[in-house]
Amino acid sequence: MSLASTYADQRILVTGGLGFIGSNLARALVSMGAKVTIVDSLMPSGGGNLENIADIRARVQVEHVDIRDAQSMESLLRGQQFLFNLAAQSGHAESMLDPQADLEINVRAQVGILEACRRVCPSVRVVFTSTRQVYGRPDQLPVNEAHQIRPVDVNGINKFAAECYHLLYHGVHGIQSTVLRLTNTFGPGMRITDGRQMFLGLWIRRVLEGGVIQIYGDGSQRRDLMFVDDCVDALLRAGADARAGGRVYNVGGAESIRLDALAQRLLSVASNLGLRAKMECVPFPQDRKMIDIGDYAGDHARIQHELGWEARQSLEEGLLRTIRYYLSNPTPYLRSNG
Amino acid sequence: MSLASTYADQRILVTGGLGFIGSNLARALVSMGAKVTIVDSLMPSGGGNLENIADIRARVQVEHVDIRDAQSMESLLRGQQFLFNLAAQSGHAESMLDPQADLEINVRAQVGILEACRRVCPSVRVVFTSTRQVYGRPDQLPVNEAHQIRPVDVNGINKFAAECYHLLYHGVHGIQSTVLRLTNTFGPGMRITDGRQMFLGLWIRRVLEGGVIQIYGDGSQRRDLMFVDDCVDALLRAGADARAGGRVYNVGGAESIRLDALAQRLLSVASNLGLRAKMECVPFPQDRKMIDIGDYAGDHARIQHELGWEARQSLEEGLLRTIRYYLSNPTPYLRSNG
Repeated sequence: MSLASTYADQRILVTGGLGFIGSNLARALVSMGAKVTIVDSLMPSGGGNLENIADIRARVQVEHVDIRDAQSMESLLRGQQFLFNLAAQSGHAESMLDPQADLEINVRAQVGILEACRRVCPSVRVVFTSTRQVYGRPDQLPVNEAHQIRPVDVNGINKFAAECYHLLYHGVHGIQSTVLRLTNTFGPGMRITDGRQMFLGLWIRRVLEGGVIQIYGDGSQRRDLMFVDDCVDALLRAGADARAGGRVYNVGGAESIRLDALAQRLLSVASNLGLRAKMECVPFPQDRKMIDIGDYAGDHARIQHELGWEARQSLEEGLLRTIRYYLSNPTPYLRSNG
Repeated sequence: MSLASTYADQRILVTGGLGFIGSNLARALVSMGAKVTIVDSLMPSGGGNLENIADIRARVQVEHVDIRDAQSMESLLRGQQFLFNLAAQSGHAESMLDPQADLEINVRAQVGILEACRRVCPSVRVVFTSTRQVYGRPDQLPVNEAHQIRPVDVNGINKFAAECYHLLYHGVHGIQSTVLRLTNTFGPGMRITDGRQMFLGLWIRRVLEGGVIQIYGDGSQRRDLMFVDDCVDALLRAGADARAGGRVYNVGGAESIRLDALAQRLLSVASNLGLRAKMECVPFPQDRKMIDIGDYAGDHARIQHELGWEARQSLEEGLLRTIRYYLSNPTPYLRSNG
């Protein structure tokens, strides 16, 4: 069965649906004929932005609800066939400053959502987005799903707890849940006002402004960036495939790249579009250094074998499409929220 | 330096200090000349009981405080040199019925305690008691600390999150914390009104009453029970040894034993004391079956090598001392709380 036929006419809730990944997912679901309800609280520090769904605004239902509001969430979950559970406090440095707030959003609210699923929609298919941050500093590269769980920040601790809750409600209560551990994801709709969502957001802003990209450290650190279309494809496959129930999958980019090389490629792509910017290496800010994980590259063999997913978008093409998007939609990055 | 000289005259806070393990620890600390403050909320479902400290009541300070009360905890932590952080919601089946309550006590309150340590006693030595339940169903026996974390109940999820917080506050904020993953612990002071703390509690009650011990399943399941004196020894070593900072240790019994063999030994020890009881195998209750982990035996090589700890008490001697205690102190098991 094709993905499109899986989702056509289905009732689907996307939490965090005004955010970067959520809005791209909602767009894909709408194009397949799904009945999409978006839940988003538009937290100022988050990635939610109504402009992210400007092109599909008339075809989705938008609920301005905080996932910590258990009563509203239960009401919204009633009758849903799929739940893409993306809403989160995703800032790592922020989580260290206010661990209790991160706990409330990333764990307590998640337990509330899963309890509501038990009560009002026990046959819902759930896909939960977690983070490679749960692994902490890798013992070896690439990192597969059996790697030790050793989070180096509050956000990583809480996201792992929420993963466990999703798997527990699968195993014990029969809620069909799948966990995706995402690496750094980029693309149109990402937060570029600052580096809260990921460092590349701020880099792209600097490129658009003709400024200077700052690389923390000596530039040798490695990351495997994933273009958002590949991420959306993984989400859709995870929701559509019954074999994914109770499973955890790494999802990331095909290529592990040094940050200095990444910056050079970004500058090169930008240059071809007539944008001039520079790069420099600067020491890690203290609040970043203490939760930094060093090099990272994910092993994505499990999701490739079990769900047939692989990263298809090249880094250059992804960077090009991202910069073009912000050249055509310049307003979002000038303010913190839509 | 001996353990006694480490703890003499030290200001020590024991959360859950009216409980089973906490009261035994407090007794050991008092005997070493420590200035012990006990924090306990005497939750009806917990193990706290003033009779547990009847013999040392005049030599400890008792604060009837719930660890969720962050303000009181901060006030109590001021000036402490050691924190034995034992207070918890420890029921596994109970955690499934009210996951949010378990989360509040086992995670949110713990974050509050660690934040308070940062603010008012950053040089405190912390020992946190976790559980072998974080491993879930073992991949192989014996289970060492590198085993996958795959909790099968809410309590296991939340205790692991609290472990991570303790290690994070060590790594990032310099709070010297050690995590002990305890197996089933038994001995004088354990809750025997019911099986909430562990199944053996209820077995001992049945023996005292001359009733029938019920074994869930066919009796072939294995556990490595630890006598409480060995557990207290591990706690004291973990607090005293600077090398234990930031480390996680399994702590358990020397012997892995089938439950039917354990029941036979208990009946045999009881018989020598003139107590007559019987045993029978019954099917697992549904709420227990769905969170059962199968066989368990811990690998304790790490704490043996690093801290010189090993289980010293034989099972028979431990059972004998436990039954004798309740023969001399019969009242606690007739009511749910002291």
